Amino acid sequence: MLTHFNEKGLARMVEVTSKETTHRVAVARGSIYMKPETIMAVKNAAIKKGDVIQVAQIGGIMGSKKTSEIIPMCHPLMLTGVDLNFDVLESEIVIESVVQTVGVTGVEMEALTAVTIAALTIYDMCKAIDKEMVIGNVRLIEKMGGKSGHYVRQGEDV
Amino acid sequence: MLTHFNEKGLARMVEVTSKETTHRVAVARGSIYMKPETIMAVKNAAIKKGDVIQVAQIGGIMGSKKTSEIIPMCHPLMLTGVDLNFDVLESEIVIESVVQTVGVTGVEMEALTAVTIAALTIYDMCKAIDKEMVIGNVRLIEKMGGKSGHYVRQGEDV
Amino acid sequence: MLTHFNEKGLARMVEVTSKETTHRVAVARGSIYMKPETIMAVKNAAIKKGDVIQVAQIGGIMGSKKTSEIIPMCHPLMLTGVDLNFDVLESEIVIESVVQTVGVTGVEMEALTAVTIAALTIYDMCKAIDKEMVIGNVRLIEKMGGKSGHYVRQGEDV
Amino acid sequence: MLTHFNEKGLARMVEVTSKETTHRVAVARGSIYMKPETIMAVKNAAIKKGDVIQVAQIGGIMGSKKTSEIIPMCHPLMLTGVDLNFDVLESEIVIESVVQTVGVTGVEMEALTAVTIAALTIYDMCKAIDKEMVIGNVRLIEKMGGKSGHYVRQGEDV
Amino acid sequence: MLTHFNEKGLARMVEVTSKETTHRVAVARGSIYMKPETIMAVKNAAIKKGDVIQVAQIGGIMGSKKTSEIIPMCHPLMLTGVDLNFDVLESEIVIESVVQTVGVTGVEMEALTAVTIAALTIYDMCKAIDKEMVIGNVRLIEKMGGKSGHYVRQGEDV
Amino acid sequence: MLTHFNEKGLARMVEVTSKETTHRVAVARGSIYMKPETIMAVKNAAIKKGDVIQVAQIGGIMGSKKTSEIIPMCHPLMLTGVDLNFDVLESEIVIESVVQTVGVTGVEMEALTAVTIAALTIYDMCKAIDKEMVIGNVRLIEKMGGKSGHYVRQGEDV
Repeated sequence: MLTHFNEKGLARMVEVTSKETTHRVAVARGSIYMKPETIMAVKNAAIKKGDVIQVAQIGGIMGSKKTSEIIPMCHPLMLTGVDLNFDVLESEIVIESVVQTVGVTGVEMEALTAVTIAALTIYDMCKAIDKEMVIGNVRLIEKMGGKSGHYVRQGEDV
Repeated sequence: MLTHFNEKGLARMVEVTSKETTHRVAVARGSIYMKPETIMAVKNAAIKKGDVIQVAQIGGIMGSKKTSEIIPMCHPLMLTGVDLNFDVLESEIVIESVVQTVGVTGVEMEALTAVTIAALTIYDMCKAIDKEMVIGNVRLIEKMGGKSGHYVRQGEDV
Repeated sequence: MLTHFNEKGLARMVEVTSKETTHRVAVARGSIYMKPETIMAVKNAAIKKGDVIQVAQIGGIMGSKKTSEIIPMCHPLMLTGVDLNFDVLESEIVIESVVQTVGVTGVEMEALTAVTIAALTIYDMCKAIDKEMVIGNVRLIEKMGGKSGHYVRQGEDV
Repeated sequence: MLTHFNEKGLARMVEVTSKETTHRVAVARGSIYMKPETIMAVKNAAIKKGDVIQVAQIGGIMGSKKTSEIIPMCHPLMLTGVDLNFDVLESEIVIESVVQTVGVTGVEMEALTAVTIAALTIYDMCKAIDKEMVIGNVRLIEKMGGKSGHYVRQGEDV
Repeated sequence: MLTHFNEKGLARMVEVTSKETTHRVAVARGSIYMKPETIMAVKNAAIKKGDVIQVAQIGGIMGSKKTSEIIPMCHPLMLTGVDLNFDVLESEIVIESVVQTVGVTGVEMEALTAVTIAALTIYDMCKAIDKEMVIGNVRLIEKMGGKSGHYVRQGEDV
Repeated sequence: MLTHFNEKGLARMVEVTSKETTHRVAVARGSIYMKPETIMAVKNAAIKKGDVIQVAQIGGIMGSKKTSEIIPMCHPLMLTGVDLNFDVLESEIVIESVVQTVGVTGVEMEALTAVTIAALTIYDMCKAIDKEMVIGNVRLIEKMGGKSGHYVRQGEDV
């Protein structure tokens, strides 16, 4: 049963008033796939200080703070930490986010939003040279805190 | 060469002052993959009027209007039309967006943002019953207007 | 005496640092009045799944989260629940919102904002067929939590 | 027929790409009703420079600029002028807004949003002394520009 | 060592999960310098009720609430009080802000943002008659709460 | 006479409907003054890739896009180009912004906002090691386009 609907079938912001305030962490990962030449351009720009990854990092952090504003039913949260990591491979940049709060709801949406906004930021900065990029494999890796306990996605390195 | 950097290597909002004002359209697609049981729950909720797709549609449209606010180097644009389409398959919801403007820059970022925010909205509404969902295959399908002409991604139905 | 002004007569955000953190609830109601034919169009659209009420519900919830951003002297709050209810009558849609938080200030502004944004959303979606609609009777119905205790507006059903 | 829905019944941002760019004006009016004692407090505060009306004016103008962000299907617009007028009567403050743009869609939503946000701002600043205030009679008075021509609501002074 | 960078040298939102929740206050000051004739115009407008200072006060308070949205690495905070004070001198308006919260991080950025947005608002309203205005001397005056204790900037009146 | 007030003395968004659409440019400058040791820390971080200047650049550009949202009476504008430049001196970082649009109002507020948000971003990232930093000398350097013609602030290098 989907808890996001009221008895009339309308979407609602789920009532979490009495949920426990705990330290909550979520880790998400995703990738942007691009041509090896585009990866090269990203690396070359970085050498001359033009750092696509820095912009994506900041886009991801700021996007993460906006989660409750852009996902209609998300609760507002006061994030207490956001960081991202980027692995630049041959034809793929792997993006990982770690988001933390002390609050009554989990932060998986904030972590997933950080990854997707970071990926969109990379897309934006490289789109003049590559229209074929694909954003994919965006998923929750790990989640701690709250009633549902510690979750690790099967088969993932954490 | 990445045009988003100035001569000191800092990211900039690319200067588009003298680009031509034309009608511009972009089409993007992407998917959220989930268990068949989760798809079932989405369908059952819809029967009782609790429509995950309606919420995702609105999340995608409103997210699309926020593109220049969340993608650091994006130009502000006055969108003249945004629509989405959802295909609910057995273990996947395919999301397509069509975004239009009359302006000096393309709207591919707005189209891609609409798709990813719609996917994140579905994720948010189904996450209580499925933590394994994956957002993927987010890509530009078609782009019209402006100097670069009509682009259709190879091998896609348009 | 209006507490929103400092000794120089300038508006301020009232200092609430030492107010008690409690569970707070507010209920607001209001109506949008329209021609019976417009009500009919709303109902007919709903039959074909084009649900004005769903859009208004989401507009109201998202608007409610923006209250401290749009009402100049409002304190930011972390809402823990928002829901709306719509009664479609013959020439009027009655909108009710219930907003909850755990915090130091009441949520009546969030409840009233939810109702008015929902009403404006309905207006927007019906304005092509009816320019005579009127939004009215927007009022606080009930308020719980905090020093001022339980308030119920006289003569209202709760 | 409601034009805000696509053929699947989902809400969309109506396509206005080919609509004519013209000078557009909208005038809206509404009222906040309150006890004569509350009106007195508003007037007394103003004498000592604590001007509820100034805050409402600014709230209304800034709210008007946010219309496309808070009304889900509204098009973004570049407003070229916003002004409000307040008539403080015995137990009612009448609020009027005039909003202008040069663009492809009308600005009635911006005018109605200006009036309601101004009314909510007054509510916020007076709520400590009066919980019975009611916002009402919010309506479009006049609309100029665009295909539909000059509209004046019947029976209104313009 | 700058704590805002991770081990890869990318900016992050500093992790504050385990910091103590205390009452925090920050006081900032700054000035906008202008021609005596411009000061005169500000004073004359105020006599006729056109109060630049009121607008700057509201701009400063609303800007302060937006701090975590505009300063990339700032933590979101729930402010519990914001007030400003303006001293109109012969060719300078001195702006002071006092910002309060109960939270895990200090509010100096919120206080400095309040002062700069208030100054920019004054600039905006006077720019038609004076292009030479300068905003300057924006600094932290006092800071209370949290591990670092009570700070008062040397040589300042508090 | 200050044009930002209506005949009742209330602030308004100045009516610019009939102003000419032209290419408009504004250049602003300002500084953040800090201890030589803080400048050293900024430089050392940059060597290890932790680039305060990159974050300030992005903060400034994104802040610039938000100008009409944070300065109460500013008109919304579609910026067509934003860039910043930073000179790191012995105890001062000089910030310059260049903002462009094609529109009916000037972009000096956008240029000044870019400089102040960039300065606040640097302040935020260095505040853990230096509480004495001062933001100052924020001023308009040059302005082109529109009725008032080409303005260069006296005594400035352009």
